Amino acid sequence: MRMSDKPLRVGLAGLGTVGAGLVKLLAENAELVSRRANRPVVITAVSARDRTRDRGVDLSGFAWVDNAPDLALRDDVDAVVELIGGSNGPALTLAKATLGAGKPLITANKAMLAHHGIELAELAEKNNVALKFEAAVAGGIPVIKGMREGLAGNRVEAVYGILNGTCNFILSAMEREGKPFASVLKEAQSLGYAEADPTFDIDGIDAAHKLSILSSLAFGTKINFAGVSTCGIRNVAPADIDYARALGYRIRLIGTARLEDGKLFQRVHPCLVPETHPLAHVTDSLNAVVVEGNCVGQLVFQGRGAGEGPTASAVAADLIDVARGEWGPALSMPAHLLTDTPAADPMKHIGRYYIRLTVVDRPGVLAELTAILRDLSVSVESVIQRGSAPDGGVYFVLTTHDGPQQAISSALERIGALESVTSAPVMMHILDF
Amino acid sequence: MRMSDKPLRVGLAGLGTVGAGLVKLLAENAELVSRRANRPVVITAVSARDRTRDRGVDLSGFAWVDNAPDLALRDDVDAVVELIGGSNGPALTLAKATLGAGKPLITANKAMLAHHGIELAELAEKNNVALKFEAAVAGGIPVIKGMREGLAGNRVEAVYGILNGTCNFILSAMEREGKPFASVLKEAQSLGYAEADPTFDIDGIDAAHKLSILSSLAFGTKINFAGVSTCGIRNVAPADIDYARALGYRIRLIGTARLEDGKLFQRVHPCLVPETHPLAHVTDSLNAVVVEGNCVGQLVFQGRGAGEGPTASAVAADLIDVARGEWGPALSMPAHLLTDTPAADPMKHIGRYYIRLTVVDRPGVLAELTAILRDLSVSVESVIQRGSAPDGGVYFVLTTHDGPQQAISSALERIGALESVTSAPVMMHILDF
Repeated sequence: MRMSDKPLRVGLAGLGTVGAGLVKLLAENAELVSRRANRPVVITAVSARDRTRDRGVDLSGFAWVDNAPDLALRDDVDAVVELIGGSNGPALTLAKATLGAGKPLITANKAMLAHHGIELAELAEKNNVALKFEAAVAGGIPVIKGMREGLAGNRVEAVYGILNGTCNFILSAMEREGKPFASVLKEAQSLGYAEADPTFDIDGIDAAHKLSILSSLAFGTKINFAGVSTCGIRNVAPADIDYARALGYRIRLIGTARLEDGKLFQRVHPCLVPETHPLAHVTDSLNAVVVEGNCVGQLVFQGRGAGEGPTASAVAADLIDVARGEWGPALSMPAHLLTDTPAADPMKHIGRYYIRLTVVDRPGVLAELTAILRDLSVSVESVIQRGSAPDGGVYFVLTTHDGPQQAISSALERIGALESVTSAPVMMHILDF
Repeated sequence: MRMSDKPLRVGLAGLGTVGAGLVKLLAENAELVSRRANRPVVITAVSARDRTRDRGVDLSGFAWVDNAPDLALRDDVDAVVELIGGSNGPALTLAKATLGAGKPLITANKAMLAHHGIELAELAEKNNVALKFEAAVAGGIPVIKGMREGLAGNRVEAVYGILNGTCNFILSAMEREGKPFASVLKEAQSLGYAEADPTFDIDGIDAAHKLSILSSLAFGTKINFAGVSTCGIRNVAPADIDYARALGYRIRLIGTARLEDGKLFQRVHPCLVPETHPLAHVTDSLNAVVVEGNCVGQLVFQGRGAGEGPTASAVAADLIDVARGEWGPALSMPAHLLTDTPAADPMKHIGRYYIRLTVVDRPGVLAELTAILRDLSVSVESVIQRGSAPDGGVYFVLTTHDGPQQAISSALERIGALESVTSAPVMMHILDF
């Protein structure tokens, strides 16, 4: 086997942090990448919004393309890397143009995949080209490859994990410093760990995008982003972190997917993670994904879920797979074999719950609350009543035994309407793995 | 893309735990494997020593082959799975016959790869067929794929981890129960976690086999098993585990590899792992591998390193890669591009050390010991003197600052010769990641 002289020529769209990181990686690790890909991998053309911005990398050797989708049709481009972002717009136009032109597409765009992944996978198959997206989920962690290939012999029973570094950074900082969400979010923004508009991250939407992709690989189902039941971390208070710790848990934003009675259960929600669980030790902006396979048992993949180097590393891995010719159906199996499995009703999900209520400190309140719980057959596991709430009331915290979410939600609706309850009840799931 | 009707027909050599596990996996997960491989993967012929033994699986549908290497030449075998074990003998004969016949070889045989991996990789390339070995390192954890493909864009700076489940099971049990090595080993043997002859496991040889394979993938160097400096866990005493804990560490058998000044440093040795490090939380028979890449940063892969299901899962993943046609050079790059990097001298390695001495309890001994350390420029970080040794002496435990192993080894040689020192000194490395 001799090294091919024919390079893989890459058109790169999007020159933000990750794009600049890819330019650096392919320059710094060029010799290693050539040996591993058995041919050089070189950028020939780039496209971004602003030609004049200094990105700290030398772009002078690349052709500049104003209109990103034009990259797909250039003779000097064999494969396109899409790092523009956004579920529609130029990213989607470029993706379709690239695959339609019979060229491989490498993308880090989870939003686009969550919304259009099946359509793009079909287009890639029709044109017999690669659609690769390692960087779209968990940044530098090779979990797409791990699931698509490493676990290919397994019936996957569950996939879950910490899929958003911003949320984990915020929760870790709250845990460490005891500060409230809003002030830690500001710090995260000033450090570059959270964006100016942090909605997609802190409301769990980014994690839900990623979870919907993982689900498809795990269960051989069509990507169903709309079927993810999603809640972010805005309502997590320092008190919750303290109570969780006293109960032996850490709070993490967890995306969970599994098949339940032939339906696809997908949820992103703040969870209490037992401190003995591997995910309890995943702090700061790290990501971690746990996969449970019927043969392999539990696997944990942990690493950096975002940032210049880690995300560029994932894009480079995809490029090398393409350069080597080692690729196949994007979602592990041909898209027409993916099943159209209906979403499970989250209200029917059986689980354990953590509930924090803020109540007026007067006799009889406890009886009112517990009567409602009894009436809705919510089985209480433990109760903590201590500490004052900022509004002058007291916190009443409980955990439940296994039960349907419907019962909890109904109970909290009734409880929230009580005169003696002074703030909206806070509910979190207890990780049941 | 339509599913191919042409199955991948597998000849299986070796019907121990893993072989039987593979038969079960391919039966139970047949439909899923077909969807993911886009064609059926079926066993057609098997070979093992004893035809009559009941293995709990139905072999009646497979041709029986008495002489394993004959599998390679059968018309009804497209790919061979070698689960015989042993670095030479029938395993190697079968491997060469298979690759020589232009058929893909999937093996779990780390000993064979440690000794003959380069030769086999060259043979596979010459015949343009796959040589796959995910199951050879860390059982079900897809770390070979992770390194070969997932990290392909990175200059790997270090790879290290817990590579032997038997040792980790023993160390965890000692940690939990406070029992001595010998009695925990017996328990491990009765539970099936250690073999009747446990030498390869507890003396670190199995971990060294695996480490030599990981090193090659990490650094693009030729496999150099002879260059691994290896020490097992026989000398770890309950007292060491207690002292380590008091100092904020756990004891694990760690395989470590990195390039140091252009030389390949490879070591398997019991190590003190800081309790904040991910490897400190890896208990029982689990394995975990940490890879540090220059772009991706630190990645951790954790899971089951042995056993029927996990190892069969890894073999199945390789078979599916072969069935999909997604494979390339065994060691990430063509074998002739692997460098012949010399082994680093372990005596020149700079690190921190834990030392436990058993000394006579009388005045002046401390001065004797510390004078030797001073004379050899060993810089002491902390000292613990407490607890009686079983032989009536007392333990004198210290940790050092960074220094060359040569100085420690010389010091321990002199110290071991002192009349006041009643047992051989025990030395362990302190993990420096």
